[in-house]
Amino acid sequence: MTVLALEVGAAGFAAGQVDDDIGSDAIRRIPLPDSEPWEGCRDLLLEVAAGTEVTALGIACAGPIDMAAGVVASVEIPQWRTGFAIAEAARKLFPTAAVSMALDGVCLALAERSFGGAQDAMDSLAISLSDHIAGGVTVGGFAVVGRTGNAGSIAHMLVPGFDEPCECGGRGCVEAVASGAAIRRWARGQGWSGDSLSALLASAREGDDIALAALGRAGTTLGKAISSAAALLDIDLVIVGGSMASAGPALWKPLGEAVAGSSRPGYLAGLRVLPSQLGDLGVLAGAGVLALLASK
Amino acid sequence: MTVLALEVGAAGFAAGQVDDDIGSDAIRRIPLPDSEPWEGCRDLLLEVAAGTEVTALGIACAGPIDMAAGVVASVEIPQWRTGFAIAEAARKLFPTAAVSMALDGVCLALAERSFGGAQDAMDSLAISLSDHIAGGVTVGGFAVVGRTGNAGSIAHMLVPGFDEPCECGGRGCVEAVASGAAIRRWARGQGWSGDSLSALLASAREGDDIALAALGRAGTTLGKAISSAAALLDIDLVIVGGSMASAGPALWKPLGEAVAGSSRPGYLAGLRVLPSQLGDLGVLAGAGVLALLASK
Repeated sequence: MTVLALEVGAAGFAAGQVDDDIGSDAIRRIPLPDSEPWEGCRDLLLEVAAGTEVTALGIACAGPIDMAAGVVASVEIPQWRTGFAIAEAARKLFPTAAVSMALDGVCLALAERSFGGAQDAMDSLAISLSDHIAGGVTVGGFAVVGRTGNAGSIAHMLVPGFDEPCECGGRGCVEAVASGAAIRRWARGQGWSGDSLSALLASAREGDDIALAALGRAGTTLGKAISSAAALLDIDLVIVGGSMASAGPALWKPLGEAVAGSSRPGYLAGLRVLPSQLGDLGVLAGAGVLALLASK
Repeated sequence: MTVLALEVGAAGFAAGQVDDDIGSDAIRRIPLPDSEPWEGCRDLLLEVAAGTEVTALGIACAGPIDMAAGVVASVEIPQWRTGFAIAEAARKLFPTAAVSMALDGVCLALAERSFGGAQDAMDSLAISLSDHIAGGVTVGGFAVVGRTGNAGSIAHMLVPGFDEPCECGGRGCVEAVASGAAIRRWARGQGWSGDSLSALLASAREGDDIALAALGRAGTTLGKAISSAAALLDIDLVIVGGSMASAGPALWKPLGEAVAGSSRPGYLAGLRVLPSQLGDLGVLAGAGVLALLASK
């Protein structure tokens, strides 16, 4: 009787068994395989299942997805860009399991609402910052799924002051300025020579001007997007997690200043933007919540 | 057994009796009184009640509001800017009536969902463009109210490419560029000499370059805000009404171009932005829906 959680991210896969107290030690991660991603993903799932009977599997996918069809079409996974029926593949792998999939951000919102920082909030926004930006909205206590499963995609909101081309084909999206991939790209264009998000965060901690400026751009962008979303949805609580959220004042100071400068209507006076207590496990933990909901 | 609807707008009040087929001929309108607004509002309500027993009253208010407290604090009504307990005042006027109030945009969403263009959509956005911009969001078939009642306020989303100061104290809000008041202000700054939104719409119909440019700015702004909101909420239907929506291609062409250019993620491929069939009656009709919901 095993319940599994799977995270399909921009940089790789993570999976683990779901129990009352998910610890990071029980989670297995692999980078995106160069060949067919499902082969690596399947091996990872079989490894964490460890021969037990899987009764439920929750899958959190970087978007866009087609939730009803169980298809992931993340632009960051080249082989799946035109769509991969991941739910069907997972059902074949675990024929007795209840398989559910949702957007990574929707899973994140489920996790923050279930046992994270948004437990007491009926309306909130959860954001995970890493190579990719995930977002999820809670309205009236429930995670908003949207028509096709892509609600919460703060990554494709438009941000004043920036006009970078985005992988979606548009310009000025949050993702194109503030994602880990975007700030690495921008920093390299300015002369920074690192090659990973963790290297950029390390450079910023050492006071590297370019790395600090890259995080500053991200913080300002996110603050404006948060203000825009909060104004639209009358939300006063935003939880920000993911590996980039550990960047400290280099990210949080410009973010806070942008929120303070832009969230001026009176009903946003109490808007709080708080770091997640779930570290970079929020999305995977939410996939676990999804699996538990489906197995009940 | 009379049910009343009241619209508290930026430019004045409108009220009428609610029946199965609200016609514009049965609606009474007054401009914002120079003195205490409630006196004019009260007289208007008594006029439309016409001595009958009022069993329910729905009030749609330009925001911000405090819905739980029944307080309107629209920045556009100077005497009420710090808050007026309109629900309590209305209960004193009609002691036997069920009095409900909501944001104008929430009422608009109720109207479009109940008998307008969004009847078949579970997730949609309704916008009314006049001196003031009202917006309302429907998620999963229900109008989103938000924590304080101000959800749907697309007017205070931030828009790339513009940096006008807004009455809320921020900069770059949709309202500061695209509302009727904003385009009149901008056009006058460019040398246009009219003094009302209807005059500006007339100038645009006559080919006046400044009036056309003002509507173009508004259309571009609205298109970007619509794209941002649609991306966040995974919405594929937006209904636009209000007096400005009748401006024709001067508004709708740049609006459509901005939507097409910005709504690039695949899940927004079917995004439609359609003119409302409710003309400039959407908000008041929604106040009627609110009253009927409360009287059941």
